[in-house]
Amino acid sequence: MPQIASLQPHPDRLLPADPETRAIARRLYDAVRESPIISPHGHVDPRLLAENLSFSDPASLLVTPDHYVTRMLHANGVPLQELGVGQDRLTEAQSRRAWRHLCSHWPAFRGTPVRYWFDSELSDIFGVTRRPSEDNADFIYDQIAACLTKDEFRPRALFEQFGIEVLATTDDPADDLSAHEALAADPTWNARVIPTFRPDRYLEPAQAGWNDNVTLLGEVSGIDVTDYTGYIAALEGRRRYFIDHGATSADHSHLDFRAEPLPDNEAARIYRAARSGRAREAEATAFRRHMLLEMARMSAEDGLVMTLHPGVHRNHHTPTFERFGVDTGHDIPVQVELTRALQPLLERYGTHPGFHLVLFTLDETVFSREIAPLSGFYPSVYAGAPWWFLDAPEAIRRYRSAVTETAGFGRTSGFIDDTRAFCSIPARHDMSRRLDSGYLAHLVAEHRIDEDEATETAIQLVADNPRNVFKL
Amino acid sequence: MPQIASLQPHPDRLLPADPETRAIARRLYDAVRESPIISPHGHVDPRLLAENLSFSDPASLLVTPDHYVTRMLHANGVPLQELGVGQDRLTEAQSRRAWRHLCSHWPAFRGTPVRYWFDSELSDIFGVTRRPSEDNADFIYDQIAACLTKDEFRPRALFEQFGIEVLATTDDPADDLSAHEALAADPTWNARVIPTFRPDRYLEPAQAGWNDNVTLLGEVSGIDVTDYTGYIAALEGRRRYFIDHGATSADHSHLDFRAEPLPDNEAARIYRAARSGRAREAEATAFRRHMLLEMARMSAEDGLVMTLHPGVHRNHHTPTFERFGVDTGHDIPVQVELTRALQPLLERYGTHPGFHLVLFTLDETVFSREIAPLSGFYPSVYAGAPWWFLDAPEAIRRYRSAVTETAGFGRTSGFIDDTRAFCSIPARHDMSRRLDSGYLAHLVAEHRIDEDEATETAIQLVADNPRNVFKL
Amino acid sequence: MPQIASLQPHPDRLLPADPETRAIARRLYDAVRESPIISPHGHVDPRLLAENLSFSDPASLLVTPDHYVTRMLHANGVPLQELGVGQDRLTEAQSRRAWRHLCSHWPAFRGTPVRYWFDSELSDIFGVTRRPSEDNADFIYDQIAACLTKDEFRPRALFEQFGIEVLATTDDPADDLSAHEALAADPTWNARVIPTFRPDRYLEPAQAGWNDNVTLLGEVSGIDVTDYTGYIAALEGRRRYFIDHGATSADHSHLDFRAEPLPDNEAARIYRAARSGRAREAEATAFRRHMLLEMARMSAEDGLVMTLHPGVHRNHHTPTFERFGVDTGHDIPVQVELTRALQPLLERYGTHPGFHLVLFTLDETVFSREIAPLSGFYPSVYAGAPWWFLDAPEAIRRYRSAVTETAGFGRTSGFIDDTRAFCSIPARHDMSRRLDSGYLAHLVAEHRIDEDEATETAIQLVADNPRNVFKL
Repeated sequence: MPQIASLQPHPDRLLPADPETRAIARRLYDAVRESPIISPHGHVDPRLLAENLSFSDPASLLVTPDHYVTRMLHANGVPLQELGVGQDRLTEAQSRRAWRHLCSHWPAFRGTPVRYWFDSELSDIFGVTRRPSEDNADFIYDQIAACLTKDEFRPRALFEQFGIEVLATTDDPADDLSAHEALAADPTWNARVIPTFRPDRYLEPAQAGWNDNVTLLGEVSGIDVTDYTGYIAALEGRRRYFIDHGATSADHSHLDFRAEPLPDNEAARIYRAARSGRAREAEATAFRRHMLLEMARMSAEDGLVMTLHPGVHRNHHTPTFERFGVDTGHDIPVQVELTRALQPLLERYGTHPGFHLVLFTLDETVFSREIAPLSGFYPSVYAGAPWWFLDAPEAIRRYRSAVTETAGFGRTSGFIDDTRAFCSIPARHDMSRRLDSGYLAHLVAEHRIDEDEATETAIQLVADNPRNVFKL
Repeated sequence: MPQIASLQPHPDRLLPADPETRAIARRLYDAVRESPIISPHGHVDPRLLAENLSFSDPASLLVTPDHYVTRMLHANGVPLQELGVGQDRLTEAQSRRAWRHLCSHWPAFRGTPVRYWFDSELSDIFGVTRRPSEDNADFIYDQIAACLTKDEFRPRALFEQFGIEVLATTDDPADDLSAHEALAADPTWNARVIPTFRPDRYLEPAQAGWNDNVTLLGEVSGIDVTDYTGYIAALEGRRRYFIDHGATSADHSHLDFRAEPLPDNEAARIYRAARSGRAREAEATAFRRHMLLEMARMSAEDGLVMTLHPGVHRNHHTPTFERFGVDTGHDIPVQVELTRALQPLLERYGTHPGFHLVLFTLDETVFSREIAPLSGFYPSVYAGAPWWFLDAPEAIRRYRSAVTETAGFGRTSGFIDDTRAFCSIPARHDMSRRLDSGYLAHLVAEHRIDEDEATETAIQLVADNPRNVFKL
Repeated sequence: MPQIASLQPHPDRLLPADPETRAIARRLYDAVRESPIISPHGHVDPRLLAENLSFSDPASLLVTPDHYVTRMLHANGVPLQELGVGQDRLTEAQSRRAWRHLCSHWPAFRGTPVRYWFDSELSDIFGVTRRPSEDNADFIYDQIAACLTKDEFRPRALFEQFGIEVLATTDDPADDLSAHEALAADPTWNARVIPTFRPDRYLEPAQAGWNDNVTLLGEVSGIDVTDYTGYIAALEGRRRYFIDHGATSADHSHLDFRAEPLPDNEAARIYRAARSGRAREAEATAFRRHMLLEMARMSAEDGLVMTLHPGVHRNHHTPTFERFGVDTGHDIPVQVELTRALQPLLERYGTHPGFHLVLFTLDETVFSREIAPLSGFYPSVYAGAPWWFLDAPEAIRRYRSAVTETAGFGRTSGFIDDTRAFCSIPARHDMSRRLDSGYLAHLVAEHRIDEDEATETAIQLVADNPRNVFKL
């Protein structure tokens, strides 16, 4: 092994190894590499940009809040508290310790997308030129920390450097969207930062806090939510408020995809029971499934694109959840079913003009079996980008291989980063562009499409698909 | 982009891009490219050949009846009525309009097998040299329409040009098979066009029309079907009638694979209840599963190869079904299970001499998990070719990759086009030959088998496997 | 075809075909090809080595006991009795006949790992230089039979020639481990042959013989197993006995992964009912799932690595089972679920220091969906090597592709041959090394990791991972 290993992301990284195919892929990638980033769904906090404060320290920026990173370190023996998880603000010693854990466990990330994103981020944003290791952890820490003190590393400067054209955040229906308002009102800020309506916690009576959440919803919307009619009106009102603030989509994440209607009086009865804490589990589930259908109805009426992100067993390890809270790396996928689950919804709204439904999954088996056939018939249905654990090179290739033959390229959503790791946004979009260029080059090299078609498709995947699908 | 894009299917299309592997694949493909086509299962109407009338117009031939095509256009915003779906005969204006929709949505098919088949059909059969587009839609329409007036584009002439040696159709048990008889009696016609026994609608008491169907079965067979014994005898009689007309297989498509015996008196009881319209849903399901087992018993006795095509939720979008009928592009796959479902059937007939069971799936997960292990033990079980949505290049590669290691090449059925799109038959078989050549070349290039073995296997897959599996 | 086909395994076999990637893979493979074999889980009989008798004949060594081989011959029409299955000892005529069946069906194995292992075994161990066929079956038989009479083909000599450093066998809790004791006490024998605790048949009250097995367990352990407390103590005692004889792991194979606690008094009640033959099926299942959790508790306490091999429908074809017994080629995989099934177990022991849980599957869909996310969070969970039907080149590639991006290389178990085919051990480990070298080379060729990292990882997969995961 070399004494000092360098960190130099290769210009051809992720392009196919076969020389002929690689040459085609390079040309396709060149056509999209500099295109602006459209991020129609993600988890960046809008206050980050509204306030534009300097990032505090390397670990708080790159390690602690990123469950992709912390779960792998945890699996490799680092306790979450060593990484600052669950703490508000890290001291320098704490940040440095967390950073050292990352660097000394660098080999654990080989072959993972986290490694790929980090390589790009460290090199392209912070100018790091050495591969992280236990030995150089402090050196790199200091290098990044020095950057973070400079104005060109504040959120807005990075946002512009990243070439982001649209960034959608994910927001609670009760949020007043003041950060979005501030950005929109700021004459020095031109980029589009828009909210997304994320109502899950108002739709699941079985979840802790539902009752308080609904009460809050009533207060924020100024509508009496004593009965079901008011509850529906309050949700509709908040959707309108979000639309007025630029939202184009609503995001839904539940355990399953099922959407099943209840008669209105039955929905009203369960609502009353749930509000007084007397809904049984089966009733709560029925209500949630009914409300998913209601959300589709509202989307058909008000035009908010509906995205569905289901199929995760959240907080698998109770002791970790109790100590560190949600999103700490132990959400584990489960098998999902769409064909039957979505039938009642698609029966009603599948061909409704302007209704858009974007389907995500962590269960790859439904790509070719269910998502592609559905999006290859229903004009409203789009195959969402590979999500979460599947947002990775080999998984993205499997996605294109599984979806394209049945649904083509035009029925896919375009890339969605879905990240709270702000600095990883350009690396993620770049990864997607490289992989799509490679997949298209593979079709060209096998004489399945011509290169001019591949070029046009590569551009559409980056520019047209997300704009059309998310109505941007 | 070039001003005028050409349509020139490349001689090496679908062969692997790596130069060394491609060279091997070319040699393998050369050994099978001209072999006669054996089509042991499909949906071409035998009257097409018996009557040998000219095809009426381009859209009626290539667009309207092909749900692979119409579903994708529908997904991309073209209403089915714009494509002539549900109409008996198209006016020229209607045909032209449908054709224009196809051409103007040509990019929607990039990366799909429909595009691949069309490229071959348009070029090889109709001499089209330009890539379809909105601009040249009428030009190409006229070119095809002019062809269709000529004698060499009548069904029988095309059949011979395609090099088809055997074509199996799919037929209702009540069919008198007069078209097959006419062809067999015609001294000017030498090719083999044989029927296939497809009894689904007589086996599912829960399906609309079952009672009338069974009454018809009794009439056609001349057997009193008042009770279960007569019903069984009538089915056996019609199988015999089909065998006498050249049939070698029976095709079964149900929602699931399950085959479960009922005691004879219980089967008889449910039969009587169903005939008088009083069978409950659970009874109807039990009866269907019992009858699937009965079909296996009959196959073991009379020798008809049993093919199973299960796992589709038919007619997913009710409004489309009600307006346009069945097979209009919204049949959506569901997950299937075979190991337990087929255990009672294989326990009884799995090692029965002469019993052949060909298993198809739209749920790829069962390829390596269930179909390959079953066909790698039971001498009766064959892994059917990739079916429907899976009859596509990447899916076929996944099939070979998933099945071969556990079951070898000899336990697979050989290619089955299963199509009603007559003109796509040569392109579909050619696609399969290219892909199998590529897969075998990959094994040779990695020194896993020798090239003489690969050549022999390529030939067997095209000639021996379908003949042996389907007893042709 | 050539008149006489040769058998010459190519030095580059299984390495990627692309020249640039192949060159990298060759270098990586060179770094591990000669490393000692660590086999932490398999089914070689320890008496083979303790007694060190000559192998009797080619078929008894290479055909009859290997269900990978016999099932494929059976599928291709050879009755199991023709292969000697179910017989104690073969006459020369019987052995020769079985061997001829193998050779005349050589083409049936094309593209399967059995073919790959045989090529290596025949060439590397027995010096066979011709591809087996009907014509040369007797010639090759004689060649192998002649080898088997020589001392250098006795088990211990082969063991040393194979370069095996550690071999774990699989043993019944009631076994006195005298073969292991004999080997450990033998001053002429230096290699490590260790037992594995395999308690399935003591944990499933629904299985035939359970009651007798438990009685035996009580006798062997010298503990009164009249009640549940004694039964638990007897199991703990036998684990301790195995640990004292070198065991480092316990192996568990059940129909599903589910682990669910029962209250102790309920477990005691079912135990008593089962002992008196009055446990209902649901109770027996609940008891088994409770006992799986108990096994995890014991592993957390005594440190035996817990391996789980579930998801097989055993003895699918009853007539074959009744005539020939277990392990005769008709065990068929079923779908499995881990996320929910293992939650109670991981909730309790997932972060327990020193607890190791290695997960195997025959249902590939759980690789990316469940196994990788679990092993990418829980420090105790490791993704087991591709098992049984999946221990094959394409399946191993799918495994690395599905697992690595979410869990990295470090969370995988390293290769496990799990075989009773003694002579296939080196070929199996060699296959794994070639494939991992190819996968790593693919990452290097796409500039995702550097070559020094790939080299280090290749070595770790062969040396460190199995040692660390199995505590060797």
